[in-house]
Order: sequence, then structure tokens, then C-alpha cells
Amino acid sequence: MKFQTPKGTRDFLPDEAEKMQRMIDVVRSVFEKYGFQPLFTPVFESFELLSAKGGLGEAVKDEIYYFKDKSDRELGLRFDLTMPLARVVASNPQLQKPIKRYVIDRVWRYDNPQKLRYREFWQADIDVVGSKSLLADAECVSAVCECMEKLGFKNFYIRINNRKLVQNIFEKFLDKNKVSEAFRTIDKLDKIGLDGVKKELENKKIDSKKILEIIKINGSNKEILQKLKREYSGNEGLDELEELLNYAKDFGIENRLKIDLSLVRGLDYYTGLVFEVYTGAYAGSEGGGGRYDNLIKNISGFAMPATGISLGLSRLFELMKNENSEEKKSVFVARVNDDVLGDVVEIIQKLRSEGIVCRMELMERNLSKQLEYANSIGASYVVVVGPEEVKKKKFKLKDMKKKTEKELMLKDIIKLLI
Amino acid sequence: MKFQTPKGTRDFLPDEAEKMQRMIDVVRSVFEKYGFQPLFTPVFESFELLSAKGGLGEAVKDEIYYFKDKSDRELGLRFDLTMPLARVVASNPQLQKPIKRYVIDRVWRYDNPQKLRYREFWQADIDVVGSKSLLADAECVSAVCECMEKLGFKNFYIRINNRKLVQNIFEKFLDKNKVSEAFRTIDKLDKIGLDGVKKELENKKIDSKKILEIIKINGSNKEILQKLKREYSGNEGLDELEELLNYAKDFGIENRLKIDLSLVRGLDYYTGLVFEVYTGAYAGSEGGGGRYDNLIKNISGFAMPATGISLGLSRLFELMKNENSEEKKSVFVARVNDDVLGDVVEIIQKLRSEGIVCRMELMERNLSKQLEYANSIGASYVVVVGPEEVKKKKFKLKDMKKKTEKELMLKDIIKLLI
Repeated sequence: MKFQTPKGTRDFLPDEAEKMQRMIDVVRSVFEKYGFQPLFTPVFESFELLSAKGGLGEAVKDEIYYFKDKSDRELGLRFDLTMPLARVVASNPQLQKPIKRYVIDRVWRYDNPQKLRYREFWQADIDVVGSKSLLADAECVSAVCECMEKLGFKNFYIRINNRKLVQNIFEKFLDKNKVSEAFRTIDKLDKIGLDGVKKELENKKIDSKKILEIIKINGSNKEILQKLKREYSGNEGLDELEELLNYAKDFGIENRLKIDLSLVRGLDYYTGLVFEVYTGAYAGSEGGGGRYDNLIKNISGFAMPATGISLGLSRLFELMKNENSEEKKSVFVARVNDDVLGDVVEIIQKLRSEGIVCRMELMERNLSKQLEYANSIGASYVVVVGPEEVKKKKFKLKDMKKKTEKELMLKDIIKLLI
Repeated sequence: MKFQTPKGTRDFLPDEAEKMQRMIDVVRSVFEKYGFQPLFTPVFESFELLSAKGGLGEAVKDEIYYFKDKSDRELGLRFDLTMPLARVVASNPQLQKPIKRYVIDRVWRYDNPQKLRYREFWQADIDVVGSKSLLADAECVSAVCECMEKLGFKNFYIRINNRKLVQNIFEKFLDKNKVSEAFRTIDKLDKIGLDGVKKELENKKIDSKKILEIIKINGSNKEILQKLKREYSGNEGLDELEELLNYAKDFGIENRLKIDLSLVRGLDYYTGLVFEVYTGAYAGSEGGGGRYDNLIKNISGFAMPATGISLGLSRLFELMKNENSEEKKSVFVARVNDDVLGDVVEIIQKLRSEGIVCRMELMERNLSKQLEYANSIGASYVVVVGPEEVKKKKFKLKDMKKKTEKELMLKDIIKLLI
């Protein structure tokens, strides 16, 4: 193989690309129903933006594709879809609030590629900018739940937490500047386990006992809320968690949400509620997000509340790969010989004008090879056209799945197919 | 403005992005009806591929975003969608032929940005790989014609020519190695005009008289064919041109095609028929393509005929920008106060479950501000929910365009909206 895809990237060959496209369509139709609008931003951004305070900072350079243009401007491929949104909001104050935007597109991170982890991958993001109401958070979570359901996932759940709550609790026994260090360690829980977290906290000279006690709290949402209320009533973060769960009832997604005090998310820009989507198929999550009320201010100078959630489409694609999905109805118009080529073209153009996906022979194969081919590409129907058929104005319609055939006028074929 | 889009790039803000997305949807649905399948390849490729023989060669470095990854691998953002396709075909010999693939996505060229010309832009490509039949060319051209019609362009046309024909004619009076030099000059005709071409040919010491005579031949397709047949009968390129025009009749696109002997296309990889899409709105074309039967061989080592055509979506977008487009029906559910919030959420979730695009208040505004907002975002309908309405189970439905309102049960609202 002389030419390959660059390290950490992959192609989606036509059958895979069709499945991916179907996933994208499903997710997009849900997002649109929820009133989110698309936004297209360049795939690369100025390094100044990518490394801005509130995001990943200067350290981002090691984690992105960084390059310079021919005038030595520092650029980088975007590592997420949130920083570009923050830039758009900052530089377009005329946009009416709330901004509800979706993007389903690729991002790039310079990780070490592993099985099923790529440096180029697809994300589906929704964000609500300008609203501090937790209804906005509830809508995002609800939309994501509907996406997961429509994609056929049955046992997924959304872990929820509030960084304000945990921070507030930790600050009762920890120095403020130790709290975010503790968060960064706890964020690795999925990867390194409880023992790993304990060890790392101790290495950082942070008392692990109380921390472990708190992040291990479990039970039903109700039980956890009750327990926390006894000890930390009046905590703003706790009230927000309860408010979100109340909205979740109205949205009909209550059973999907699971309070998890160990969920803190790695990025420092989260300020309140945080979410992660789990199917249980991976050690990690299939998506996540939360409220980031300060990020846009860091970039624009003006305060702007925001919340959002991102689905990891590339990861979900791997989980869906082996699932059967309904195939699109398609027709192959075969011909006995080239004398009827003009008629064949006329027929496919009529079928296409009715919205029917339609192919014809382009390889100059004989009829039986054409039928073999139609079968191999999974065509649902074959129409056979020869001089006889053209004279009679009746054509053989073969149902490739039922293995039946009928002789029909073109208008009746169309009726049957649409 | 602290943070901007990188030079030569632009954002599509939500309303623009919606229009662009609609264009993409229109084009995609046509491509799919013609039996093309999607293919996703990475946005960057190895520099080795981008500079491969048959494409733009080493000189490509000046025209692309070139960079190295952290292991010093040479990479570049793709400058078209054809080289990645050629790579996929070369490294996936198992793919059944013909491969009919579409891509609607972005490419990058390091041009000098001008008004309405960007370094990042959208293309919509279809290609048929593995078929040497000119039916494949005809299908591509026909699909593009349908796209243009569906996008609302009325006076577009497709300039067609055959490089083989012109090359063959030129070789009667020109050295072989001078022919491609002449082609490169003729390709600039749109930019520099006939006088410019004449001057440049003379600078290259190429006899311009005969060349200008040939590329200036005009008339109806029939007239041009007749004239050429008298002088160059038996020319393979001429026969192909005629064959394409015959197919065009069957496809019903005959009137869109216009033979133009000055059309040679800049890229050396074209081997036969070439096409360009014109609306007349720009000096240049809005798309183009042709047959490239040797490109894949250069990359894979095995022969593989191919043809394709690319629509310049970014350019077309600029032409469509000011056109009115039907707006998607959407509903805003307003509320009198927060006592009915649970009911409001229930209502929007029911509307959404029927596929209706639906928004609710997220900014804690009072009812009249909510109505103002709904109006400003172009909502087609507003449903008003208050304690009275909830009790009666009847809600005010305001038609925002007709300025009328009705009191209806939710199920009747749904009936009216779907």
C-alpha cells in the first residue's frame, strides 16, 4: 500500500459512510426539533483562541495539530466545538439570545491513537448561550437522551453532578487551590480506579479519606439528595441539582439521570452542572458537557452564561457498526442490450424524478452479470428493459428480497415504489 | 474584536448556516437519487499523496496548508476531493466497481483571499470510478444540472469539450510538449481575455493564430460538430463529444450543454471530456470536472478509468444569499408564568414528538417580551400557556404570519401543525 491515511485518521468507506450519515441525520433532526440552528466555523482557529484562558491554555499546543500559515500566523485544528462557538458569540454581539446552536462535525486531538480512538473524530454538539435558566440545561440533556434513543441505545444513562456542590463541600476541608488539583485527579477515576485516585491524591498531599467518602456516595437520586440535604442544606449547587431533576421529570427523562458525585469533568471551564453520557460499553463516556458561565467572558470581556453537551459520534458509530439498519429502497435498471439505452435513461430519469434512488449499468456487462451486480450491491428492485419490453411498454420488476417478479407498466412500477 | 477567524476563512452564522445546510441537503438528495454514496476521508492527507504525480505535483506546496505532525510527518489540508478518492480507490481494491461516490465538504487552498473567494470553501463532488462508459459522464453532468435547477438557477449552462480532441488538433501544428503549455495559457482565458492569451502564447513562442482560430469556433453544438467533422473526422475526442451529446438528449439536458473548444481545464490529470458549470454571474465557473483516466494509475499502479464533477458550493451560496427561501415551520410555546412550566414542557415535548420544531422561553421574560421574541426569530406559530388554559385544556394558537388566533385543544393544534 503506497499511500495511507495519516496516522490517527481513518476513512469511512461508502457503506460505513452511509451508516455514519444516517446517524448524523438522526441526531440532526432531533437537534432541529429542539430549535437548535446550525453554525459553521473554520476547521482551524488562531492559536491565540485555542490557547485562551479558560480553555486548555498554553498546554494545548501538545494536544492539537499546531501549524503556521505562510505568513507565520499561528493556527491549529480545533480540538472542540466550544471554543469556536465562544469566539463567534464574542465577536457577534448582535446575535439574539438565547443562541441555540448545533454542530455535527469533526475535531482533532493529538492523542496517542488507540483501538477505536482516533486523532480525527466526529462530535455532535448543542449549546445554549445567553440563558442562565437550568431549563436550558434540561433541554440539552433531553435532546441528547432522544438522540440516544433514536439511535437505538436502550441502556444508556446520563451521569449528572454539580461542580459548585462538590467544590463547596471540598472547600470545607481543603485549601481552595487544592480543589482543582483534586478535581483533576478524580476526573481520572474511570481510567485509574478508586485506588489510583487515592494514591494520586496522597502524592499530591491531599487528604483522600474525606474525598473518597464523598465521591463514593451512592443510592437513588432521591436518596443522595436527601443525604446531601441533611449535611449541606442551603448549598446552591445542591439546589440546582434538584431543580434539574425536577425539570427532568417534566421532560420525561428522569429515569435516565443518575447523580454521581465523582463526576467533575477535566476541563476547568465548567462552572456548575456537568453531564456525561454512558452506554456502559466503554470504560469512558460517550459524551458530556455542562455549564460554562465564564468561558465567553474570558474571551469577550462580557458576561455570558452558557451550557451545552457533546455526543461522541465516532465512539457511538463503533457501537452501532454491527447493528442492522434498514436499507434505503433502491432500484437497478438492467438492460438486455444497448439498443434500448435511450429508453433506459428515460426510465431512470422518471424514477429519479419521483425521488427513487436509481442506478443503471455503467460497465457494459451482459444481463446476467448485471443482475448479479444488482444483487451484490443490495438493490431492492431490478427493472429489466429490452426491445420486447419497450414495444409492449411493460417491464419486468424483480423484487430482490422476496425473489418475485411482475410485469408492469412504468406508471405502476412507480406507484409500487414510492 | 480580540479573536477573529483565521485569514481567508469565514463563519456561517446560524441564519446563513441554515441556508447553506439547505443547499447541501438539496444537492445531497439529488446525488443520492442518482445512486451516489457518501465517502468520508480525513481533512488532511500525507504530503506525498497531495504532491503525487498526476495531481498538482511538488508545486502544490505553495498552494496548500502544509504542516508537519509532532513526529515530523509531512501533511497538508486537502486541496480537492479527488486526490483523497484516488487514494481510497488505490488502497481498497476490494470496492466493487463502479464506485459512485459523493462528498459535500470543505477543501482548502492557500490563494490570496479576495472578495467572495476564501481559503476554506465548500465543494460538492460526484465521481464514477471504474467505468469507461461515457454514460457515467452523462450521469454526472445530468445530476449536476438537476442540482442547479433544484437550487433555483435558471440560466446556467455546462460548457463541454474534449481535451483529446483539442490536443489532437493542436498536435498537427505544435510540438507535443508545447500542447500542455498552450493549454495552461488557454485555461486563463476567463481571467486575461483573448488578447492576454495571444500575448502569453507569443511569449511562450507558440504560434497563436491557429490556436485562436480553433478556440474561437462557435455556433450551436450541431454546427460546431459539423464543422469539426468536416476537418477532423475519425477523431476519437470528437466522437466522444458527439456520444455525450446523444446521451444528453436521453437525459433531457441537451439544452444545458454548450461545446466550447477553449475549455481545457488547468489540471493536467484530465484525459478526455471536460465540463464547466456557468451561471454567468462570475467571470469564472461555478464548478467543473471531467474524465481523468490516468490519475488513479499514477497512484495505485493499476489502470482505473474515472470521471467526475465538482460544484463550487461556496460560490453558489453567495449567489443564493439574497434569495428568499421558504422557512421551516416552527412553534414558540410562551407561558404566562412559571406555575405552568411543567405543562409547557409537556406540550413542547408532545409537539416535538410529532416532528415539529419547537422552542420555549429560556430567558425568564414576561409574556409580551416572549411574543416580541417569537416574532423576531420568525416563529410561524405561538402557543400561549397560562393557568386558565391549562384548566380548560384549550390553548391560544397564534398564527404569526396571518396575525390570527384560535383557541384549540392540544391535539387539534398538532393536527393543524403537522
